[in-house]
Amino acid sequence: MQDHKNAGKLTTYAALDPADLVAIAIAHVLALFIGVSMAANISGGHLNPAVTFGLATGGNITIITGLFYWIAQCLGSIVACFLLQFVTDGMNGVQGVAMEIIITFGLVYIVYATIVDPKKGSIGTIAPIAIGFIVGANILAAGPFSGGSMNPARSFGPAVVNGDFSQNWIYWVGPLIGGGLAGVIFGDVFIGSYQTLPTSEDYA
Amino acid sequence: MQDHKNAGKLTTYAALDPADLVAIAIAHVLALFIGVSMAANISGGHLNPAVTFGLATGGNITIITGLFYWIAQCLGSIVACFLLQFVTDGMNGVQGVAMEIIITFGLVYIVYATIVDPKKGSIGTIAPIAIGFIVGANILAAGPFSGGSMNPARSFGPAVVNGDFSQNWIYWVGPLIGGGLAGVIFGDVFIGSYQTLPTSEDYA
Amino acid sequence: MQDHKNAGKLTTYAALDPADLVAIAIAHVLALFIGVSMAANISGGHLNPAVTFGLATGGNITIITGLFYWIAQCLGSIVACFLLQFVTDGMNGVQGVAMEIIITFGLVYIVYATIVDPKKGSIGTIAPIAIGFIVGANILAAGPFSGGSMNPARSFGPAVVNGDFSQNWIYWVGPLIGGGLAGVIFGDVFIGSYQTLPTSEDYA
Amino acid sequence: MQDHKNAGKLTTYAALDPADLVAIAIAHVLALFIGVSMAANISGGHLNPAVTFGLATGGNITIITGLFYWIAQCLGSIVACFLLQFVTDGMNGVQGVAMEIIITFGLVYIVYATIVDPKKGSIGTIAPIAIGFIVGANILAAGPFSGGSMNPARSFGPAVVNGDFSQNWIYWVGPLIGGGLAGVIFGDVFIGSYQTLPTSEDYA
Repeated sequence: MQDHKNAGKLTTYAALDPADLVAIAIAHVLALFIGVSMAANISGGHLNPAVTFGLATGGNITIITGLFYWIAQCLGSIVACFLLQFVTDGMNGVQGVAMEIIITFGLVYIVYATIVDPKKGSIGTIAPIAIGFIVGANILAAGPFSGGSMNPARSFGPAVVNGDFSQNWIYWVGPLIGGGLAGVIFGDVFIGSYQTLPTSEDYA
Repeated sequence: MQDHKNAGKLTTYAALDPADLVAIAIAHVLALFIGVSMAANISGGHLNPAVTFGLATGGNITIITGLFYWIAQCLGSIVACFLLQFVTDGMNGVQGVAMEIIITFGLVYIVYATIVDPKKGSIGTIAPIAIGFIVGANILAAGPFSGGSMNPARSFGPAVVNGDFSQNWIYWVGPLIGGGLAGVIFGDVFIGSYQTLPTSEDYA
Repeated sequence: MQDHKNAGKLTTYAALDPADLVAIAIAHVLALFIGVSMAANISGGHLNPAVTFGLATGGNITIITGLFYWIAQCLGSIVACFLLQFVTDGMNGVQGVAMEIIITFGLVYIVYATIVDPKKGSIGTIAPIAIGFIVGANILAAGPFSGGSMNPARSFGPAVVNGDFSQNWIYWVGPLIGGGLAGVIFGDVFIGSYQTLPTSEDYA
Repeated sequence: MQDHKNAGKLTTYAALDPADLVAIAIAHVLALFIGVSMAANISGGHLNPAVTFGLATGGNITIITGLFYWIAQCLGSIVACFLLQFVTDGMNGVQGVAMEIIITFGLVYIVYATIVDPKKGSIGTIAPIAIGFIVGANILAAGPFSGGSMNPARSFGPAVVNGDFSQNWIYWVGPLIGGGLAGVIFGDVFIGSYQTLPTSEDYA
């Protein structure tokens, strides 16, 4: 494995050090698990044009549906990159709050997708893994910037013991906005829509 | 990713080195998995005011219940921080025993929550993951202090082979107190309460 | 554990550094999980002559079937080593495309094996783990060479934000060929074969 | 977290470096998962006197049974430490074969416990995790000594490509003995015993 270190490489910033490589690999293990768990029961969990294309060549998705997924996937990637550029270009209170909103939104969204959603199916069996994985992924992403709290209580205890509340507001405002948004979108809109759909049994 | 190392950061001790960041992220993956698995069937697994708030905005929990959770979450965080301060401020036999009590309590508690508890439900399917994860999390927390044994047999074998029993008592006293306490609380109190509750069938 | 570093070792390139060892161990955790998940429902998941031999001595597989597995296992290992030698001997556009074909084939194949395949059985419960694990394993393998994208959208967003599309074609051509091939083989051939088999119910 | 590095510690070789600590923690995550999965359906998965004691105080196991578990746990720990001392004291062909026998025995044993055993129950759902985890754990243990192959095919391919078969015999002899032993013990003895037990239905 040491011999490979001298081999040519295609990308300029490709990680060659084991610790870097493990960090990147673990981030992707966590992130892909999360992406699939989050989206599986809403839209099928398509995060990747190559997977969508593979399912089309195998006859398991239509070309038209696949094209819509491709557009959504590329738009999502662009938006994510601009968002990342914004929250990591320096770091002040506003950016810390923005970072905490984004990562706590993800956490509470996956709580809905794997625990609360009545349509969660067998993903419920591995819900504790999903919660652990999204918190780990968010810390890998946000750790060097806002610290990656997502949890006001986790920041409140140390503030009490240290007697230092100077930045504690960030870890209340950001997580509560992010968590509240996820609750509105998944709880009120997605799950709410299940209940307002008239089903045939309603007329029985 | 290397470029990010020069970016501003909000928290003073934010980890920037991949190995530090991976250690912190893995600790949280394990800890959140454990927290959710431990508490899911007793109180719903609320560890985080932002998650509780999200579930309230989504209409899946009442405001009043949420407020009680908030108080419990903040009190738990403060108690944990004081406890951590005590067991890691220097390290002697008493602190080693205290550390082993705390981490073994967690281990045996999760054995009850995921294997023994008749109400464990689908969490039983992933019980071996829960046991592995709590031992890993406890070692990340206690490894640099008491070594994180949790297991008298694990410490007894090396003591026999090395002929050095000087600190072996710590790894019998701490784990047995911690494990015994978890047995009393979960086995006798929680599970015991299921059986003493008169159910409607009892009167049938 | 530090003491072991001075112990003798059998293999010349055996990893002694914790970070190297963790990287290698994680790669194998991910790879074996994937290998078993991929093949379990097609051929039983035999990747190892010693496992095949153990199942033969235990009376759970015949000697003849075991011999065919041994031949397939040794041929697979030789082909993999030559392939690895080709894609990592220097790195240009052709090798980058070849690397992305191979790893994306694996990703989409496991999407079929754990999500799409109607015969997937209980492996479906842990499908998000399988997706996360194969992406992590592929990054550990391909990260230092092509970067290990497997996902055109993941490469497209950064290209848009950075305004640099110079090598973006590699991450469209490679993944789409690899994903398309997996769709043809698993979707059209394997799953297609289930549906063309006349079953007794067809004649009922 | 950096501040803790100066804190006192109880054990002489306690890991303070994040990479060491992560390696040790991951080894324990994998090992405990494996130990519980291996033994859960044969003897209940008791690896730890403190867990056994906790189950006794909680009323879920009798004191007498617990005492037998304590003796087995301490004996197992002593045997394991002597075995470890033997296989890691220098490294020649005999020790390499012994190491590969031990780790391949574990691998094939867990294949039986989680896939082949008709009494495996819900552990079958997470069998691919068990296979991945034991291979990772064995590499963390044996990697610096014999390399931790467990798989003749995995060693045969590189030998063919490099044209170097000088030590290849070790990776055939060790794994085949270890795998064969596991097949005899679990397949012929344990599973064999299920079938020879006369059950009440046999006489119906």
